[in-house]
Amino acid sequence: MEEFDFGMVGLGVMGRNLLLNMADHGFSVAGLDLDAEKAASLENEASEKHHVKGTTQAQQFVTLIKKPRAIMLLVPAGKPVDAVIDSLLPYLEEGDIVVDGGNSYFPDTNRRVQELESKGIHFFGMGISGGEKGARFGPSMMPGGNKAAYERLRPIFEAIAAKINGEPCVTYLGTGSAGNYVKMVHNGIEYAIMELIAETYDLLKRGFGVADSVIQKLFADWNESELASFLIEITADILKKEDEVTGKGLLLNYISDTARAKGTGKWTSQNAMDIQAPVPSIDAAVQMRDISKYKEERVKASELLTYDTKDASLDETALFELLKDAFYFSMINIYAQGMAQLTIASNEYNYGLNLEEVAKIWRGGCIIRAVCLEDFRQAYQNQPELPNLLLDEALATKLKTTQQAARDAVKLAIDKGVPVSVFMSALAYFDSYRSETLPTNMIQAQRDFFGAHKYERIDKEGVFHTEWN
Amino acid sequence: MEEFDFGMVGLGVMGRNLLLNMADHGFSVAGLDLDAEKAASLENEASEKHHVKGTTQAQQFVTLIKKPRAIMLLVPAGKPVDAVIDSLLPYLEEGDIVVDGGNSYFPDTNRRVQELESKGIHFFGMGISGGEKGARFGPSMMPGGNKAAYERLRPIFEAIAAKINGEPCVTYLGTGSAGNYVKMVHNGIEYAIMELIAETYDLLKRGFGVADSVIQKLFADWNESELASFLIEITADILKKEDEVTGKGLLLNYISDTARAKGTGKWTSQNAMDIQAPVPSIDAAVQMRDISKYKEERVKASELLTYDTKDASLDETALFELLKDAFYFSMINIYAQGMAQLTIASNEYNYGLNLEEVAKIWRGGCIIRAVCLEDFRQAYQNQPELPNLLLDEALATKLKTTQQAARDAVKLAIDKGVPVSVFMSALAYFDSYRSETLPTNMIQAQRDFFGAHKYERIDKEGVFHTEWN
Repeated sequence: MEEFDFGMVGLGVMGRNLLLNMADHGFSVAGLDLDAEKAASLENEASEKHHVKGTTQAQQFVTLIKKPRAIMLLVPAGKPVDAVIDSLLPYLEEGDIVVDGGNSYFPDTNRRVQELESKGIHFFGMGISGGEKGARFGPSMMPGGNKAAYERLRPIFEAIAAKINGEPCVTYLGTGSAGNYVKMVHNGIEYAIMELIAETYDLLKRGFGVADSVIQKLFADWNESELASFLIEITADILKKEDEVTGKGLLLNYISDTARAKGTGKWTSQNAMDIQAPVPSIDAAVQMRDISKYKEERVKASELLTYDTKDASLDETALFELLKDAFYFSMINIYAQGMAQLTIASNEYNYGLNLEEVAKIWRGGCIIRAVCLEDFRQAYQNQPELPNLLLDEALATKLKTTQQAARDAVKLAIDKGVPVSVFMSALAYFDSYRSETLPTNMIQAQRDFFGAHKYERIDKEGVFHTEWN
Repeated sequence: MEEFDFGMVGLGVMGRNLLLNMADHGFSVAGLDLDAEKAASLENEASEKHHVKGTTQAQQFVTLIKKPRAIMLLVPAGKPVDAVIDSLLPYLEEGDIVVDGGNSYFPDTNRRVQELESKGIHFFGMGISGGEKGARFGPSMMPGGNKAAYERLRPIFEAIAAKINGEPCVTYLGTGSAGNYVKMVHNGIEYAIMELIAETYDLLKRGFGVADSVIQKLFADWNESELASFLIEITADILKKEDEVTGKGLLLNYISDTARAKGTGKWTSQNAMDIQAPVPSIDAAVQMRDISKYKEERVKASELLTYDTKDASLDETALFELLKDAFYFSMINIYAQGMAQLTIASNEYNYGLNLEEVAKIWRGGCIIRAVCLEDFRQAYQNQPELPNLLLDEALATKLKTTQQAARDAVKLAIDKGVPVSVFMSALAYFDSYRSETLPTNMIQAQRDFFGAHKYERIDKEGVFHTEWN
């Protein structure tokens, strides 16, 4: 009884791997799953050194954990989370901590925090990134909730997190649903970078006829440069994976182009619109997955809406250099959008986020880890109140030197008829953000013209209406 | 008692104008407003021929209307609508009809339909477009609700609606919230066309230094062409409106570039993401209004993120022709996105929409009326099951001949450093939609690599997972 340091509900691969990761670091861990096979798997996968127990009984599980209890849920977002909480509640006591480690929708977390705090139980929403392997050997974790209660969790989480320069990729982020929100935006950025990579691959392959093996080498090279990142790294790996079913060519070429999504990118865009945080590249990535769904229509349209592509007088070396700079430029603009959304959301929801800390814990373990995160950390260290990474001088210098490549890359894609929604949106974001004056005065005039919605003037205070005709 | 054909709650300009429009057509109308001044205004604005009455008493108001009663609400969306319904309910009887004429969020309408149907009262959500002037002399109206009950409303609505070739711009659209949904997407399209106009103006003025008066003439000319539309027409009017405050130059140049929004465009994008209907140009228009808000940051960024614009060897005539075709191309792509969203939503929510009817009632009265709507009506008449306007052969032919201009216009804007988010998104949509194969297979491979999310293959059924490394 009460002999285990930490409990986990939901012993799928992620749950088991996180527990084994804790066990590696000397913590004793118990797991609950209604599926006896999964509960047994946990014990079977453990080594002799590990102090691990799996069970299918909720009451037994709770009584196994040391008080105040620290229990994590890794079950599908939505109703399953509420169901598990309800099943544990009869056995929980004041001061216990429940950590939801799934991709829960952040308003759900706010509701749960309130419901459980009224019972004296601390509820944490914590995003976890890094996939199965990250969970086993070092994820990035984004916890939000009661700050004092976090001290009970901290030693365990810091032990199992990925480390960069000895610093763990986990930190207390803020109150309420701060952790889920940060993870949501992490995923939005992830969508946009994945689409950026897909567009780069498409432009090279479909636009310029570059061979898969050459594209593979290019991504592998980029992973040794300032573009180094987990997503570039796995792209290079994907581009050398042979198909085992047919034994002929790359597996990638046999994969359907209808993309799936679990919804976190969509939530990022939808909430960004609610709080007026412009994230056009995330929006574009979300809709590109959506448009991929309409395969039959696209096949018909490909026959009807033809275009004679233009030749480009550009050798491969020049093309590759251009795309490298264009990729860098677009990538920075994507992170800038997402991190500005966090800043705006932190004000809107009183999360109290520290963006330097966010950049810090994203440097390792998570899917969007990249060497550029250290530049972002530095930018926020220099100016903690920085509203947007584009206003950091060091980054601005890099953006200015790479912008021509981004412009040229989009122009080449246009000539080739290859859609590059995220490259375009990153460039349009950059050009909008650096526009002292936008033509939105025309939109204000139109709104007042047809709807008497009024407008502001640049030369005096107040709101005005005009009888336009 | 029971002497009036129609009742209106909410006697702001829109409500009064709609009633006076009905009175013009011989209907007797009563209005309710808690503000005695507004109730009096209604009667004061009426002529001798009109049979009109204003009141501030809910009970008296209801008993004035002939049974089964037809009562419209024109009050702000959200709680005010529920409050008004609650205040009328004690006096309403089975068979009465309540029409919400505001821009209500469509799920609210579904809820109200259910609540009121259980009391035997028919609830209609009806979008109205055309602004104050449209309300007075002929709006476009988009009603959804109980089909049989619509017969009570039809003679009045058909009498007051705008007419195109003698056909009224109103028709029964479908069940439940169909009317609000169609109006919501109407507004999403409106956002995108307004931003497209703003970008055209910006590219001409900021990019190429074209004088306001020349731009004015250009829009006036376009309004005599296949681009003819209400929004182009008022743009030409706006560009000749002198500033009366300073007496110096155009009013437009004194209007702040921070754009406001009431949320219907945002709802369109957010719901499009829920039902996986790609509407990138509406998304882009929503975020451009949002980015306009960050004026202080933009001013700082304009100093930091400079760009040496490129000269273009293009005379004004060539530029204007290019932009005309580019505008046409982008406009068609915007309508295509919005109307495809309606088709997808109709399946998702069982609205039973008839897209030919939608195109028909948008030809006149509403803010997005344009001569091209007749081409869309024709397209849907030819193929009622057409999933996307881009697959209509006549439109496809026009898009193919104008696509080069759209490509060139975006390239010019890139060289000028002028952001053209909607032009870009329209082009990217076109190139995505006509792509038989998209690079989203890479995204599926990445998702399976880091998250074991599985993928489909092109050569066999089923879902697959690979151990990538």
